[in-house]
Amino acid sequence: MPGRSLIILNPNSSDIVTAAIDRAVAPLRAAGVPLRCVTSQDGPKAIENQRDGDLSIGPMLALAARLEPEALGFVIACYSDPGLHALRDQTRLPVTGIQRASVAMAMSIADRFGVIAILDSSVRRQRRSFAAMGVTSMWCGSRALGLGVADLADPNKTAARLIEVGCRLRDEDGAEVLILGCAGMADYRDFVASETGLPVVEPSQAAVSVMIGQRLSAGAAPRPS
Amino acid sequence: MPGRSLIILNPNSSDIVTAAIDRAVAPLRAAGVPLRCVTSQDGPKAIENQRDGDLSIGPMLALAARLEPEALGFVIACYSDPGLHALRDQTRLPVTGIQRASVAMAMSIADRFGVIAILDSSVRRQRRSFAAMGVTSMWCGSRALGLGVADLADPNKTAARLIEVGCRLRDEDGAEVLILGCAGMADYRDFVASETGLPVVEPSQAAVSVMIGQRLSAGAAPRPS
Amino acid sequence: MPGRSLIILNPNSSDIVTAAIDRAVAPLRAAGVPLRCVTSQDGPKAIENQRDGDLSIGPMLALAARLEPEALGFVIACYSDPGLHALRDQTRLPVTGIQRASVAMAMSIADRFGVIAILDSSVRRQRRSFAAMGVTSMWCGSRALGLGVADLADPNKTAARLIEVGCRLRDEDGAEVLILGCAGMADYRDFVASETGLPVVEPSQAAVSVMIGQRLSAGAAPRPS
Amino acid sequence: MPGRSLIILNPNSSDIVTAAIDRAVAPLRAAGVPLRCVTSQDGPKAIENQRDGDLSIGPMLALAARLEPEALGFVIACYSDPGLHALRDQTRLPVTGIQRASVAMAMSIADRFGVIAILDSSVRRQRRSFAAMGVTSMWCGSRALGLGVADLADPNKTAARLIEVGCRLRDEDGAEVLILGCAGMADYRDFVASETGLPVVEPSQAAVSVMIGQRLSAGAAPRPS
Amino acid sequence: MPGRSLIILNPNSSDIVTAAIDRAVAPLRAAGVPLRCVTSQDGPKAIENQRDGDLSIGPMLALAARLEPEALGFVIACYSDPGLHALRDQTRLPVTGIQRASVAMAMSIADRFGVIAILDSSVRRQRRSFAAMGVTSMWCGSRALGLGVADLADPNKTAARLIEVGCRLRDEDGAEVLILGCAGMADYRDFVASETGLPVVEPSQAAVSVMIGQRLSAGAAPRPS
Amino acid sequence: MPGRSLIILNPNSSDIVTAAIDRAVAPLRAAGVPLRCVTSQDGPKAIENQRDGDLSIGPMLALAARLEPEALGFVIACYSDPGLHALRDQTRLPVTGIQRASVAMAMSIADRFGVIAILDSSVRRQRRSFAAMGVTSMWCGSRALGLGVADLADPNKTAARLIEVGCRLRDEDGAEVLILGCAGMADYRDFVASETGLPVVEPSQAAVSVMIGQRLSAGAAPRPS
Repeated sequence: MPGRSLIILNPNSSDIVTAAIDRAVAPLRAAGVPLRCVTSQDGPKAIENQRDGDLSIGPMLALAARLEPEALGFVIACYSDPGLHALRDQTRLPVTGIQRASVAMAMSIADRFGVIAILDSSVRRQRRSFAAMGVTSMWCGSRALGLGVADLADPNKTAARLIEVGCRLRDEDGAEVLILGCAGMADYRDFVASETGLPVVEPSQAAVSVMIGQRLSAGAAPRPS
Repeated sequence: MPGRSLIILNPNSSDIVTAAIDRAVAPLRAAGVPLRCVTSQDGPKAIENQRDGDLSIGPMLALAARLEPEALGFVIACYSDPGLHALRDQTRLPVTGIQRASVAMAMSIADRFGVIAILDSSVRRQRRSFAAMGVTSMWCGSRALGLGVADLADPNKTAARLIEVGCRLRDEDGAEVLILGCAGMADYRDFVASETGLPVVEPSQAAVSVMIGQRLSAGAAPRPS
Repeated sequence: MPGRSLIILNPNSSDIVTAAIDRAVAPLRAAGVPLRCVTSQDGPKAIENQRDGDLSIGPMLALAARLEPEALGFVIACYSDPGLHALRDQTRLPVTGIQRASVAMAMSIADRFGVIAILDSSVRRQRRSFAAMGVTSMWCGSRALGLGVADLADPNKTAARLIEVGCRLRDEDGAEVLILGCAGMADYRDFVASETGLPVVEPSQAAVSVMIGQRLSAGAAPRPS
Repeated sequence: MPGRSLIILNPNSSDIVTAAIDRAVAPLRAAGVPLRCVTSQDGPKAIENQRDGDLSIGPMLALAARLEPEALGFVIACYSDPGLHALRDQTRLPVTGIQRASVAMAMSIADRFGVIAILDSSVRRQRRSFAAMGVTSMWCGSRALGLGVADLADPNKTAARLIEVGCRLRDEDGAEVLILGCAGMADYRDFVASETGLPVVEPSQAAVSVMIGQRLSAGAAPRPS
Repeated sequence: MPGRSLIILNPNSSDIVTAAIDRAVAPLRAAGVPLRCVTSQDGPKAIENQRDGDLSIGPMLALAARLEPEALGFVIACYSDPGLHALRDQTRLPVTGIQRASVAMAMSIADRFGVIAILDSSVRRQRRSFAAMGVTSMWCGSRALGLGVADLADPNKTAARLIEVGCRLRDEDGAEVLILGCAGMADYRDFVASETGLPVVEPSQAAVSVMIGQRLSAGAAPRPS
Repeated sequence: MPGRSLIILNPNSSDIVTAAIDRAVAPLRAAGVPLRCVTSQDGPKAIENQRDGDLSIGPMLALAARLEPEALGFVIACYSDPGLHALRDQTRLPVTGIQRASVAMAMSIADRFGVIAILDSSVRRQRRSFAAMGVTSMWCGSRALGLGVADLADPNKTAARLIEVGCRLRDEDGAEVLILGCAGMADYRDFVASETGLPVVEPSQAAVSVMIGQRLSAGAAPRPS
């Protein structure tokens, strides 16, 4: 499928968040699979509760339908995987979400993961998601920064809280690997890793990694004769 | 760490199996991370029960220790992840196992996975492993080919059984994605996918994909200033 | 709140389904709480997969917002509870969904419930929902009629399949109570009960019952002095 | 079945507790189903441990047998549902218990419930009950008032502890809805709701609500022709 | 406590069952702990449903209270452990039940156990018990002989069904160890073991074994000085 | 099998630990089954992490093979049950491990057990083991002494920490029975029991008890004729 890309859908309408996602996944371009990050211009400005997430699905599905002829597959780049199964209903191309893929990446690295969330309300949604996936016993907890998505762009507000929350997940909850629970935290990945001493999973990178892995693997082996 | 490779350890002493693993992961070399598959010459000839697996750990740990100066990280390429936590005790480099990573890859793609196992005794070991990981509710079952590892090299014996078992996992157990439960089945990946219509995860590819993903991602983003 | 009603939202645009819901809940009007069934005119014609369900949320939330001044509370009357948590984000009035309430009613009556679903794809969505709720161990299975929502209006097509599926849930899966897994099956409630000998839960009735129960109970007791 | 009532059985011999139950369920008489609360005169004075509960079953079953000709169904009104399955063995009429029904009502309203218990020993029994039901993952905890059943009649002793315990369930355990874990707390329902800001489920009201719902619903729809 | 015995309580009034229990535990007298099997003369004739079990508790507790001065501890010898926690509320002596102890013994021997039950109704009670204990994932199923307790005394009726049921548990359900789910099956222990090739746990023997083990162990080691 | 013994294998090479195990199980010799404790001279000096445990398996299996002609069965006496399933693959004699048997003994006595571990790293291994067994919901926690195996021989270092940890398991975690999570703590069994007021399970005693129970029970009953 020449000319096609793996399309990373940002279901909110913030080009700033899309740019952060693009920075995060940029080094994975070394693997040779074209990556393209797009903003759902008709989506909500930010996704901070279930209502925002549910209302982002319609515009995102329409965007994915328009982009389908140019796509190798789709990544939904919001940490609640809005519309994951709906997009699978709509297309036969491979689809994953960054929440789901982040758990997958984390469990490859260690036994129990903790999540740095933005808001307390995110934690409730995560509980439902992790239970629906069936990964609750690997999840040792989520703790919220108590910051809005917009605040994440301000390192002065964010850095100290990230370390504080990450250390509590490590020391009180027993996390052996940390997941950054929002696409907007990508710039802090290595910072959190070096300050907490734990491996850190950035969800957009995780999702793109698994999609690249499946993409490169398909067709690798000769058919048995 | 120039000159280092991601080292894929085959804990049994079969160079034929190591070669099959190498063929499976070869296309992932496109991502630019050096990959090196090695045979544990002092390991058992095949790993068909828990005893074989447990006895493979000593030689494999010794091999990993010798290779450490040349390693970016390790993949344990036997579908029961023998010595996974022991190797993590021994080294600070990243370590994963192909069973664990195959589940991670499968859950990125679909809700419920089925495993094509070699022998009935493998299924009992898988039940313990999946329970220890905490992924039982995503696992809709494992079914055995009833073939020895050596028989896998004979397509006449193997192809029909693979399809029969894969279709039962799909139709009776509700599998939405299939995992090939032995490093020796890698050559049949695309064959099983096309015959069953389900996505198929080859565990060595899955493990190498997640390790490449973590490798390329680290250091990607600038530290917040 | 005089003049207000408990509003039962049909998130699809079928007035026929809304009428069936109204017939189902009509006898509960004896309890004295005003009930009003409304059709989401801008919703999809039917909700047969996750995509239909997700896309029904936007119009339903808009409808609920318009009706809020006339509402005592809301029931979402589609057997996948689309938009349940989103509507709770939007309003402070009590909100329940017929899937959730049907499980609640069933567990009051017996230990293990089975669900008569419309399509196989519904079963997958139910698995995710029941896991997210945490009621998997009470669920002994869902079996699909293999009929479209429209077919449900034709008793000749529907009656025999309902009994066949209900008896298999009872005899093979161990169901002690049956749930009708679609608002459109309401007319068959007593028929299924008499033919299978099991108690049957009709989800819209269940949801309205619990909302009436909470409504009548509030303010019942004197404050302690 | 004219002249029959839904019979609410208080398995202890305290007429004071029976009167409190009657006050709690009184507003549900508006639904038109006759309700009758009876004391098991030969039961224990109070049910504070498993032994009390087990020994209450014999007298309660005998009472239920005597009342059967006058009954539409039975509610067991002690928060450990003593004799629930035994009474189902004895009668073909519908039977529920207030513990079971309170969980059902709570899960209709919110995702996770907390229980205000009387004594620490109640919490151990609740753990066994919730595990047997299969609702453990919805249960975020029970906390005991540390008061005897008799003390509950004294608002001076009870009110402050109720709020303290309710707020800890809300803030430390993440309860989204509170259940009053004893029939004797019914008078404090609205008080706890207003002080904690959470919805509160009174178990006798919950059980009567679901029984009324099933009663009114049966026979509602025409048989398919 | 010289002159005291470990008292095995048969909560039903059948001296024939008590004699079978006594035969089963007789060889454990070799361990030197006095064993005494007693019939609860005021209990039900047989315990075939939850009602029988619940009604057996009162007489059994009274019997245990009378025997307390002569007891080292108590075993409740009915395969549903009626009154286990009630008896623990009544006495400070150690108490176990044969169901609970049979699972303990089985899990010492193998990973997954199956239970040969008497009646289908026993299976429902076992599901509740195993869930309350938290051992569901070790339980691969129970299958009923479909015989009454009285029929068990007739080998012609019982032997063939025991093997048929045992083999289905082994072959279809994956049992690695079988539990005889009724004190009245004790005489068939070795027969079932030799015919199925699986280890077999006789529950009264299991309970007495663990009580003897705890008894002999206490006071074994010197206090640290 | 005259002249044979139940062989208790200490997989580490410490004769001091073997002697402590022998002291612990000595009173169980009263039951008449010959007991023999042996040291795996080629094993690691101590087993403090997964690597030590995995590397102990090879020498232990070789030792068990040599001793097989003299054995009635085997107990693996290290609190992580290294090589349990491998030894079952190697021999047809009965095999248990002290971790597994300690949980069995604990669940016979009470509903929820807590474990006194040596090091924090032991707790991680226990989590994996208890999950693989399927007993997580009975496990209320493990807490580490923070002492090395060698330190256990010094009562001055050990006694106070044992009580502190045991009381936290009882008061904060809700343990109703304590398990000593290392064969080297055996001498403190009665001390911990008397200081915490809880029953205490010493794992080697537990494993020997269940093996003796199965040994004495086999062949007890006459075959049905």
